[in-house]
Amino acid sequence: MTLIRSWLPAANDPACPFPLNNLPYGVVSAAGGAPRCGVAIGDRVLDAAALAAAGLVTVPAGTFDAPSWNAFMAHGPALWASFRAELTALLAEGSAQEAAVAPHLLPLADLQLHMPFAVTEYTDFYASKHHATNVGTMFRGAENALPPNWLSIPIGYNGRASSVVVSGTPVRRPWGQVKGPDEALPRFAPSARFDIELEMGCIVGRSSTGPVTVAGAEEMIFGYVLLNDWSARDIQAWEYQPLGPFQSKATATTISPWIVTAAALEPFRVPVPPRERETLPYLEEPKPGLYDIALEVGLAPEGGEETVIARTNYREMYFSAAQQLAHHTTSGCAMRTGDLLGSGTISGPQKDSRGSLLEMSWGGKEPLELPGGATRSFIADNDTLTLRGAARGDGYTIGFGEAAGKVLPALEDPYAG
Amino acid sequence: MTLIRSWLPAANDPACPFPLNNLPYGVVSAAGGAPRCGVAIGDRVLDAAALAAAGLVTVPAGTFDAPSWNAFMAHGPALWASFRAELTALLAEGSAQEAAVAPHLLPLADLQLHMPFAVTEYTDFYASKHHATNVGTMFRGAENALPPNWLSIPIGYNGRASSVVVSGTPVRRPWGQVKGPDEALPRFAPSARFDIELEMGCIVGRSSTGPVTVAGAEEMIFGYVLLNDWSARDIQAWEYQPLGPFQSKATATTISPWIVTAAALEPFRVPVPPRERETLPYLEEPKPGLYDIALEVGLAPEGGEETVIARTNYREMYFSAAQQLAHHTTSGCAMRTGDLLGSGTISGPQKDSRGSLLEMSWGGKEPLELPGGATRSFIADNDTLTLRGAARGDGYTIGFGEAAGKVLPALEDPYAG
Repeated sequence: MTLIRSWLPAANDPACPFPLNNLPYGVVSAAGGAPRCGVAIGDRVLDAAALAAAGLVTVPAGTFDAPSWNAFMAHGPALWASFRAELTALLAEGSAQEAAVAPHLLPLADLQLHMPFAVTEYTDFYASKHHATNVGTMFRGAENALPPNWLSIPIGYNGRASSVVVSGTPVRRPWGQVKGPDEALPRFAPSARFDIELEMGCIVGRSSTGPVTVAGAEEMIFGYVLLNDWSARDIQAWEYQPLGPFQSKATATTISPWIVTAAALEPFRVPVPPRERETLPYLEEPKPGLYDIALEVGLAPEGGEETVIARTNYREMYFSAAQQLAHHTTSGCAMRTGDLLGSGTISGPQKDSRGSLLEMSWGGKEPLELPGGATRSFIADNDTLTLRGAARGDGYTIGFGEAAGKVLPALEDPYAG
Repeated sequence: MTLIRSWLPAANDPACPFPLNNLPYGVVSAAGGAPRCGVAIGDRVLDAAALAAAGLVTVPAGTFDAPSWNAFMAHGPALWASFRAELTALLAEGSAQEAAVAPHLLPLADLQLHMPFAVTEYTDFYASKHHATNVGTMFRGAENALPPNWLSIPIGYNGRASSVVVSGTPVRRPWGQVKGPDEALPRFAPSARFDIELEMGCIVGRSSTGPVTVAGAEEMIFGYVLLNDWSARDIQAWEYQPLGPFQSKATATTISPWIVTAAALEPFRVPVPPRERETLPYLEEPKPGLYDIALEVGLAPEGGEETVIARTNYREMYFSAAQQLAHHTTSGCAMRTGDLLGSGTISGPQKDSRGSLLEMSWGGKEPLELPGGATRSFIADNDTLTLRGAARGDGYTIGFGEAAGKVLPALEDPYAG
């Protein structure tokens, strides 16, 4: 697909993350103003409630009353499609509505970005084979790296919805129980191995109550964000057996501020890699379920320059979001509007395509070298970690905004408050 | 503590689960009526919104507008205490308000019971030593039964809030991936080892944003329900490594319909058992954190008589709810009004005090014998499983109502809908 030209010049720049082909959904506020639903286009944000109030788009009454896209998502795919078509017509080059629409455009640079939706429940997966192999080798040895179920099940666990924050929110290094291999008993200490996980987050728009096919799951998915599943590796190593990660993953989960819709990503579909073991029929892919989205991680020390420490792609996943969502419903588990599914850390085959510092530094044994002689095995206090993503079409770019967070030092006494 | 006598005769019966000492909170509806907040007393339910509208109790405007106790809980402990004191005065023997209150009493037998609160997030623990030892022996062998971290950490994992249903809701036997020890590849099949877990559920009333002490956690806890964490053991065995149970626990989680407040349970406090390993200071118990609550499980085949298959007590836990909640916040994890914490399966030391069929039948090797010659290793189709609980004071009983569910046969084709 090629660029759909807009009468907004900035939207036609091939490097602009928000061309008319994108139309991502966020929640914004101007200085002193209340948060409201907005659509990014070029260097502007279209005020969705104002557009609806002016009769320029047709949505059910109350859709944009709250500062979140949950109500819109709950209306389902027919409204998603009609609203997108209306926006496209309004903003396209040659639209007769330019003068009517223009007053509802706010300058993006002046706005604060908020959580674009209320997270109902959050599930995190473990479905990139390179990542699972790397981590499994470090945690359980090379012979047991990939668990016996891994090629059959999109392995997932329930995460903590209250941990999800929007890009820019500072992240406080957590305390927790840790125990070194030579220590007899655990200590309560700040995490010394605080890490990122580079993931995509899939947002459930339409709810379900029983088992759903992969094709049905595709129809439930509203869109995607970048997602950083901050992870305290030392806490994780001590707590995770036998019931999985818990406090090691509960400090924060940072997402990018714009929901990029499945519709915008449609031209970038790619199939999952060839199966290495026959898949059970309920997990078969009816159409290519991944997307070609280039991803990168930047690390910037306090006051220093940023280094891109990893580059990978969402197509490195072994299971797609639709396969994960279908598996999530097998037991009859109800899914609801606003459910967030983390893809799991996305690692490629090369050392510089790994999605976590744990993998990049191989558990701390091979520290990363940064410009100026600094090194990192895990995150240092006041480092800012930033995820970026882009799907590149013919003359246009689909961007997500950043998922960035600065890691603040641990509290001196966590119980002083 | 002794019975507080009410002018409602039924509330003074020593066997009545809802004496004036209890005052549990639920959501009820009369035939054809809308669900509303109610307080159980004797054989009646007091309409909370009507009581507030009549000016007989003092709550902030809007507290009872929605059919859930979340808004009330969010107001915090001062309101919890003042409201309870007002109710107690209104309903006590000799109250001058009997005539004013009486019109707002509905006959309990005529009412349908609904979810008493909206579950924000659900966490399940694994904190009864007898249960962990039994299950660990079966899943990992006697040498590895209790994981190295178990005596130090209240082991917990995030569960699925959308699975929580009120007593009486039928439970459909799930499908899922299962693999027998002699099978090379997994099959997709109905669970053949569907089970209960007898637990208490602790409800967070007041929210928190940073690490909370055990004493602070006590102040956040609003009340308790009975909780059955339905578990598909065959699905669990195949899926749970390395990141914990997922679809095996997502079919349903049944709770009793009445929230019994921490205030009502106060006279029944008992300490956690002696520590077998020194506890980290953040988990030390400032006051006895468990409660003496007798628990039982009944199993009734379709059309048959119920057999009580297990009797145990909440005091068998190794970690209390307040310790679990404090641990839950160590990483900075935000807790919110309506969060539900399952205690973990509560097993005692005897075979007939085990809280799951997995343990009672020792993984199916020692089936239970029911009257009339029937046997059970796991749940059979159309069995009804019922949890009951009672704290017994001097001349009165604190009851919870039942947590009951009938297990319906698996769908013939889960994807036919």
